[in-house]
Amino acid sequence: MQYQFADRVARAPKSFLEELFRVSSDSSIISFAGGLPSADLIDTEGIARAAREVFEEEPKIALQYTTTDGYLPLREYIADRYRRRLGIPATAEEIQIVNGSQQCLDLFAKLFLNAGDHVGMERPGYLGAIEAFSLYEPVIDTVPLEEDGPDTKAFRDLVTSRRPKFFYGIPNSQNPSGRTYSQEKRKAIAEILSGSDTVFYEDDAFGELFFDAKPRLPVKRYAPDQCVISGSFSKTVAPGMRIGWMFAPAEVLKQFNVVKQAADLHSNFLCQKILYRYLATHDLDAHIRTVVAVYGRKCRLMCELFDDLMPQLAHTSPEGGMFLLATLPPGLSSRAVFDRGVKDKVAVLPGLPFYVDGGGTDTIRLNFSSASEEQITEGMHRLARVVASFR
Amino acid sequence: MQYQFADRVARAPKSFLEELFRVSSDSSIISFAGGLPSADLIDTEGIARAAREVFEEEPKIALQYTTTDGYLPLREYIADRYRRRLGIPATAEEIQIVNGSQQCLDLFAKLFLNAGDHVGMERPGYLGAIEAFSLYEPVIDTVPLEEDGPDTKAFRDLVTSRRPKFFYGIPNSQNPSGRTYSQEKRKAIAEILSGSDTVFYEDDAFGELFFDAKPRLPVKRYAPDQCVISGSFSKTVAPGMRIGWMFAPAEVLKQFNVVKQAADLHSNFLCQKILYRYLATHDLDAHIRTVVAVYGRKCRLMCELFDDLMPQLAHTSPEGGMFLLATLPPGLSSRAVFDRGVKDKVAVLPGLPFYVDGGGTDTIRLNFSSASEEQITEGMHRLARVVASFR
Repeated sequence: MQYQFADRVARAPKSFLEELFRVSSDSSIISFAGGLPSADLIDTEGIARAAREVFEEEPKIALQYTTTDGYLPLREYIADRYRRRLGIPATAEEIQIVNGSQQCLDLFAKLFLNAGDHVGMERPGYLGAIEAFSLYEPVIDTVPLEEDGPDTKAFRDLVTSRRPKFFYGIPNSQNPSGRTYSQEKRKAIAEILSGSDTVFYEDDAFGELFFDAKPRLPVKRYAPDQCVISGSFSKTVAPGMRIGWMFAPAEVLKQFNVVKQAADLHSNFLCQKILYRYLATHDLDAHIRTVVAVYGRKCRLMCELFDDLMPQLAHTSPEGGMFLLATLPPGLSSRAVFDRGVKDKVAVLPGLPFYVDGGGTDTIRLNFSSASEEQITEGMHRLARVVASFR
Repeated sequence: MQYQFADRVARAPKSFLEELFRVSSDSSIISFAGGLPSADLIDTEGIARAAREVFEEEPKIALQYTTTDGYLPLREYIADRYRRRLGIPATAEEIQIVNGSQQCLDLFAKLFLNAGDHVGMERPGYLGAIEAFSLYEPVIDTVPLEEDGPDTKAFRDLVTSRRPKFFYGIPNSQNPSGRTYSQEKRKAIAEILSGSDTVFYEDDAFGELFFDAKPRLPVKRYAPDQCVISGSFSKTVAPGMRIGWMFAPAEVLKQFNVVKQAADLHSNFLCQKILYRYLATHDLDAHIRTVVAVYGRKCRLMCELFDDLMPQLAHTSPEGGMFLLATLPPGLSSRAVFDRGVKDKVAVLPGLPFYVDGGGTDTIRLNFSSASEEQITEGMHRLARVVASFR
């Protein structure tokens, strides 16, 4: 029969995922194309111990249904961390647990976007956000992302002329660029937003992963009612548990909660319990210091290899996160580098899916968290040969 | 500031949830209002052992990101179960793991419904489906649910005149009524659908919970390409892991998978691993026989107490599942019974949220799986006093 899918499906951007699967299933390929944290840095023993304790002490509760908002002690832990790390007076009532912070993208778009509404984001912007938002059929307007954050003039023009429902950005170690907003830009953004109806959506997947282990103040610090922050334990503890959160004003969260309930009742409770037990019995800050020390070394190694082996490629110099962005020499296409790279056993992600306007033909994103230092060295040599082959 | 929520939020039905939370947090109230499986029947030891084994053998994999479609051995287990139990030639390629089968409602509506599209369901119909579908702003058309399934003439009229994108039904132990479609009705439905563009969405949350432990053949058996089935481990193993699935033709599932990826990347992998390990090392059928023996006793007890204590209330006589529906005498309002019941420490769910047209003022839904037999006896006596107080 002929299935009558909704219009939104036909309008959705084609995912790059299938090609990435093909790449990641071939173990002879060194992949910088994905977005995995380092599996070696997951504290499997600590999490296993936490799981044992949950199963010993309250398995019936952990395996039963729970409320949509999430496990209260976990929400209190998250709120407390905002208070201690960033000096933001967060409360558990402003925290909603979700099935990984990708779910915030879906639910937030569902909560705010009518078809045809304007939504703003950075150019380039996170492909997972483009995919999530597109299914609600908005007009996506972009603001160029400079070294220190969005182009302020373009941002102001967007807010005043298009009046987007919200602007989605990643101020800390942006995906795909690896760039971090300066504090001046954060303040400027908060000032531009003031008095407008536009919400600022700070995706903070990477805020805990600065190589210097120091926090940057979010835009929300300067405009508390106008900003929401999504966070995730996927990069700091483990992705497989799928625990993220939305931190938003209670008035927003109340409606967000209705949408979450309709979407999947609640996030998995067993993992919420295990995660909370882990956090309550381990020093997360010490664990994160270990992670960022390793990621910092890997990032510097990748940058140095770019400079040594491919000086004709400009690249960003991340202060944290898991990604950097490189710009190819004129005439060299990111798609061609991807295709040739797969043949020569090194995978990078073409910039294409990070643009809603056909950009990205000359940029590639590289992940430095997942591969080992040996793999980074070998992979970058392979990439240099791929790039050289196009001369 | 004034938050500019999407129109869909204002149009969503008001949830009954907050009042239910209030009820469930008061331990002096005997609640038949919720939808919990019996916590005493969750095999906590078996699941704990499975978790230990996963943490011993492959913790790094279980805690890392995975693919959107879900853990292949778990999908193969589910497909194999369709083949063995129901003789349906299912394959893993037709199975997508989701975050509880509620997520199927959301993603399927997202995949099929433009605003203003028609979607059909039973009257009364599952409130979680009404909540999920409503956010995509369809027109919801209903077909009266008779003792043995939907009114065939009304179903035919709906399919031919409104041409709904899909019809959502629960053929096995329907929620809220506890009714089960006859095989004749299932065949009739398949015949009516044949040649139309309407998909039949079989929510099969309760198909494993027949008190006689025997399977009923799904509508999909008679119209494989035209039907999808959603399933869940929440009622047979444990709800807190939030593992359900969609079983659909590969052509549908491919697009469903795109929508799932945008929604939350993938369902929690740790729980998928634990669940699969549990299923691979335990006899699920034997466990289910224990569960349905208990639920059957509880259901019969509740029915007998209705007949003995409240003969003026008609009620359904479920063959399985977790719910029955009772009809109040003329003039008695379900809302009044709820309010007075909470005061007198017994909670039932008014039929109201199961109707999209203001019905349900004279029906109440009762859950018989969660309370103990002692609680059922005491609670039904309390309910009888509540009902008598309105004379």
